[in-house]
Amino acid sequence: MSGPTPFEDCPAPAPPQRILLGHGGGGSLTRSLYERVFAPAFANPLLDARHDGAVFDLPAGRAALTTDAYVVRPLEFPGGDLGRMAICGTANDLAMCGARPLHLSASFVLEEGLEIAVLERLVASMAGAAREAGVEIVTGDTKVVERGSGDGVFITTSGVGVVEHTLPIGPGAARPGDAVLLSGDVGRHGAAIMASREALGLDTDLRTDCALLWPAVDALLAADLPVACLRDLTRGGLATALVEIARDAGVALAVDERQIAVSNPVRGLCELIGLDPLYVANEGRFLCIVPEARAEDALRALRACPVSANAVRIGHVTASPAGRVTLKSAIGSERVLHLQTGEQLPRIC
Amino acid sequence: MSGPTPFEDCPAPAPPQRILLGHGGGGSLTRSLYERVFAPAFANPLLDARHDGAVFDLPAGRAALTTDAYVVRPLEFPGGDLGRMAICGTANDLAMCGARPLHLSASFVLEEGLEIAVLERLVASMAGAAREAGVEIVTGDTKVVERGSGDGVFITTSGVGVVEHTLPIGPGAARPGDAVLLSGDVGRHGAAIMASREALGLDTDLRTDCALLWPAVDALLAADLPVACLRDLTRGGLATALVEIARDAGVALAVDERQIAVSNPVRGLCELIGLDPLYVANEGRFLCIVPEARAEDALRALRACPVSANAVRIGHVTASPAGRVTLKSAIGSERVLHLQTGEQLPRIC
Repeated sequence: MSGPTPFEDCPAPAPPQRILLGHGGGGSLTRSLYERVFAPAFANPLLDARHDGAVFDLPAGRAALTTDAYVVRPLEFPGGDLGRMAICGTANDLAMCGARPLHLSASFVLEEGLEIAVLERLVASMAGAAREAGVEIVTGDTKVVERGSGDGVFITTSGVGVVEHTLPIGPGAARPGDAVLLSGDVGRHGAAIMASREALGLDTDLRTDCALLWPAVDALLAADLPVACLRDLTRGGLATALVEIARDAGVALAVDERQIAVSNPVRGLCELIGLDPLYVANEGRFLCIVPEARAEDALRALRACPVSANAVRIGHVTASPAGRVTLKSAIGSERVLHLQTGEQLPRIC
Repeated sequence: MSGPTPFEDCPAPAPPQRILLGHGGGGSLTRSLYERVFAPAFANPLLDARHDGAVFDLPAGRAALTTDAYVVRPLEFPGGDLGRMAICGTANDLAMCGARPLHLSASFVLEEGLEIAVLERLVASMAGAAREAGVEIVTGDTKVVERGSGDGVFITTSGVGVVEHTLPIGPGAARPGDAVLLSGDVGRHGAAIMASREALGLDTDLRTDCALLWPAVDALLAADLPVACLRDLTRGGLATALVEIARDAGVALAVDERQIAVSNPVRGLCELIGLDPLYVANEGRFLCIVPEARAEDALRALRACPVSANAVRIGHVTASPAGRVTLKSAIGSERVLHLQTGEQLPRIC
């Protein structure tokens, strides 16, 4: 058998200021990290049960499951941070399924040497966003990788939501003639990340649009609107979301660029760097496809919510050619939108 | 607006053999990676819906949610690999909640430069393990980080399970007098990883014990046994699981070391390296606490399952002192088990 090992009841040194490999070992350092950082911020009865998972009641019917990894850099940027994104992004993916966000899980891959104070700030931000979303972080996991094998912290959140209606929301439900609505101006998140990363020396007030979308979806559902499809505009921006919906739905979309708002700071930054704001990431904007007959009702419901106060109709669904998105420009010309092959900006989310 | 960007309908180059940053950009490379690697391996109607999450029916009652990040190195080792672990580990955490594993999500953080062939092998292994577990991977996400900011691939899986009984399984349900059962010999996973990592030149047949535990739990529940607590023995091994249960339950545990099987290859490797096999990780072993009156019935149910064919009673729960685990050794002496502060072996799971 092995010789003596350092046991936790030896005289305790001062708590470490940085993540050590031992924080991922499953022993007393792992437990102390949990008790110092995670338990106080996320406290709730399910997490406090300290089991291998969380067990909870669900109403009969449909549920939704979603997951996303968050690797954005810098960790903190104007209007948000990695922690807030990890909550809002996953709650939003549930909302886009028409599901009320209920419970979230959080899994951390930490790099040896990460300042624990940074982790504490991110975790506090997650806890704040979770409160705002009305969800709890009910289970989690922490792993540590050697210095140089990670990049500070990656967070993967998953979420379970409750579907309280019978609509088959998804690309497959979009029909020719349906109206395409957009919840607000585009490009704020990507522009804020670019401005904070590039040290351009610009005195801009660019802030991420990172926000929770469920209140807007809830308003649509509460108004009994027959929502066909919802899609949030993250990586690849509005253009990518439009092309993906058109392809997956097997329909065409005709969109009027004049209806798509881009704020002056976003437009300015995009012109400076040479990016198309339609391809720039968002974290608080979404598309909604509804039957034309209910488009005005849907816009009214959306505009009553702060997160979608500037919702507009940007186009409509047509039957063919399947997968084609046509954009009518401000000067009346038309162009076809494609998926980009490259990477405008790595690690935007 | 921006100048021309490289569009996907340019003449296509040969498909890349390694992960590029663009595979994480959300555009056509992301889509092609999904269609080339993930969609064929994981194909199922929920995933194929290509929405922001998966929506499915759940029976009324209780559900479970769990998550784990998997960062083990090497990526492939005797008897398993990162992909198989990512499925078995999360399905097992659901089983330890007494929940039948139903649906899983998978989130990948890939490092630029990763060979796509390696990813394909891991994904095929995940798909095989998921079939074996009777679960589907219904939603997922892929991010790419720059070369040097990750380590090939990290996988986070989350799972939703269905709780088909009313038992409050967890540390809080353990009562003084209950029997402590162990499902088999310990230390195989950690020993297999050590042997494959250290290039010790040993001609051992050490293989991970990585396996699915739900069949054993299902057998316990089907026999109507009043299971109090289940805990799989991962990081920190048997000793850590015992101490955690004792602390979280506020009870003491008395365990007889002579009942704990350690195979000769595991014992030999641990002696060579100087590790205590009770602290070495497992991926297919678990503890079960049941009322003493039903211990023999529980052992009979466990032994009828291949994964727990060698289940034994290793001890019992006592009232105090809370959190104390006492191990009676082969020569009759007693020692107290503690959580280790350090890290026996980083990145074991």
